[in-house]
Amino acid sequence: MPELRKDPISGRWVIISTERGKRPSDFPPTPKRAGDPKKCPFCPGNEAQTPPEIMAYRPDKSGANTPGWKLRVIPNKFPALKIEGNLNREGKGIFDRMNGVGAHEVIIETPDHQKELADLDVGEVQGTLWAYRERILDLKKDPRFRYMMVFKNQGDAAGASLEHSHSQLIATPVVPKRVLDELDGAKKYFEYKERCVFCDILRQELEERERVVGENTGFVAIEPFAPRFPFETWILPKAHNDLFENHDKETFPAMAQILRDVLRRLAKALSDPPYNYMVHTGPVGNHHEAIYHWHIEIIPKLTKVAGFEWGTGFYINPTSPEDAARFLNETPSD
Amino acid sequence: MPELRKDPISGRWVIISTERGKRPSDFPPTPKRAGDPKKCPFCPGNEAQTPPEIMAYRPDKSGANTPGWKLRVIPNKFPALKIEGNLNREGKGIFDRMNGVGAHEVIIETPDHQKELADLDVGEVQGTLWAYRERILDLKKDPRFRYMMVFKNQGDAAGASLEHSHSQLIATPVVPKRVLDELDGAKKYFEYKERCVFCDILRQELEERERVVGENTGFVAIEPFAPRFPFETWILPKAHNDLFENHDKETFPAMAQILRDVLRRLAKALSDPPYNYMVHTGPVGNHHEAIYHWHIEIIPKLTKVAGFEWGTGFYINPTSPEDAARFLNETPSD
Repeated sequence: MPELRKDPISGRWVIISTERGKRPSDFPPTPKRAGDPKKCPFCPGNEAQTPPEIMAYRPDKSGANTPGWKLRVIPNKFPALKIEGNLNREGKGIFDRMNGVGAHEVIIETPDHQKELADLDVGEVQGTLWAYRERILDLKKDPRFRYMMVFKNQGDAAGASLEHSHSQLIATPVVPKRVLDELDGAKKYFEYKERCVFCDILRQELEERERVVGENTGFVAIEPFAPRFPFETWILPKAHNDLFENHDKETFPAMAQILRDVLRRLAKALSDPPYNYMVHTGPVGNHHEAIYHWHIEIIPKLTKVAGFEWGTGFYINPTSPEDAARFLNETPSD
Repeated sequence: MPELRKDPISGRWVIISTERGKRPSDFPPTPKRAGDPKKCPFCPGNEAQTPPEIMAYRPDKSGANTPGWKLRVIPNKFPALKIEGNLNREGKGIFDRMNGVGAHEVIIETPDHQKELADLDVGEVQGTLWAYRERILDLKKDPRFRYMMVFKNQGDAAGASLEHSHSQLIATPVVPKRVLDELDGAKKYFEYKERCVFCDILRQELEERERVVGENTGFVAIEPFAPRFPFETWILPKAHNDLFENHDKETFPAMAQILRDVLRRLAKALSDPPYNYMVHTGPVGNHHEAIYHWHIEIIPKLTKVAGFEWGTGFYINPTSPEDAARFLNETPSD
């Protein structure tokens, strides 16, 4: 019997379609692209092909926009939103528009064209996460921005247009709808229970242990109860915290360890699937300390979003999170 | 300068990214599959390969589950939701679940394996739309169902698993979140203005004529002001009407004419793109006659949904609806 499950935060229903029950081997592997590092604008030596860097980690004290960096942050050459200008919010009859003001940055995670994020060592993954924090804190100083979304598209099918491993950050002048929906759901729960919904989820998951796929001193990785996609995985801090960027240096090693571990096991279990991940942190200047709980959502790209999903917002997921957790827990990360 | 636009119904913002401005020829054509009609379970002669038909149009009075039909409706062999059983809604700690009870039907639009919906004549398209209506009205008699979503996935990239032209209908035991969001937005507008937001959109679009791509006696086709996707196209009835299935026989020729015309021009302008369309009608037993306005949303599959979209619900659209309308209006349908 298929099962309908409701996500307690967003109120979104998903269909866990046991009839279509899929094991990891049922998803066809995605062909890897073999790019040419000589032509890659993200490779060392090609720094001039990108806009000038915003910041870089250069342990050898090499000069800006030259090789020697371990991580490099640049403005996106084809930004979805532009950094200059005013919003000029206005109506056009019944419609609303504003200028596309925002920031769109690229975090190049490694100088090595051949490596994916999961191939890096824990220290390098930690550097990537730390760069997210530095950039968020810097962009928060700009009063025009209301939200910073850090995300990663890995693989062509997941929307990556360049294969050299990178993440992106987009700062938007409005709080996005999906973020508001999540805040709204968390708020309703808090008003009723006077507890954080994410903390309650963690408590139940750690007790039941049916969907936990990773745990260390500071973080837990779970397959959520109502996942939209097969092998959708969330990473949450154990201690309540509404903002990713609030974490101090001490917690980053554990954060990097669990992210790398989960990505490595997903790669092994699913033959290097394309994937997206998104860092869900609270909006700028929000006063939701008590109700929101930041987390990372990882979604491997294994199924297609089709008319039913577009029309209803319901997702049909052919792999139950309990099965996905079992498979992942049987997969070694090394 | 990119532009941020807000959909007046859902409140969803989209980024019209003029930097990335794309013309139809910038989207690569999708290779067509060449299936073998002998093996196709939707082809005449293979009726035994599908579950027994629910209904069929058989002008020659041929017997059920034999060739001779012009259109055939069958239960989905691998249904996302199952017709038997009770909901058994229950809590599991903090989580909610229920049995996956619902209906999942397939409307085979033509016996001809080589034809797509846009290739059929107006009478055949009308038959397909009429079959939607008949099935919705029949399923509405089942008190377990709260919503009927009719949709079509055309092409592999849009999620079609069989290439023989078909639509689907899924009846769900809860009103889907996206439908509720739309109703909610329309309700807020109505409370403020005491007018239907869709009627107001139509009035403005027909006056400005910047985004209208089709019009006949009963219907208008537009590129919406804040489209998520390049060449997203909506078809709306001119006269206010909350339910698709409320239409009587007289209005179906015009509905079929405009749908076929739009699909043909999209196919020509974009080299037969994969696409989805969804019939957005009001939920069962709703009392939203005044606020909701049924319509069809057509979304060609030309761009990839990536981390930013998943995290924010914002869409980045590289083709403005004004450009898309211009291209479509320059494209003849024959």
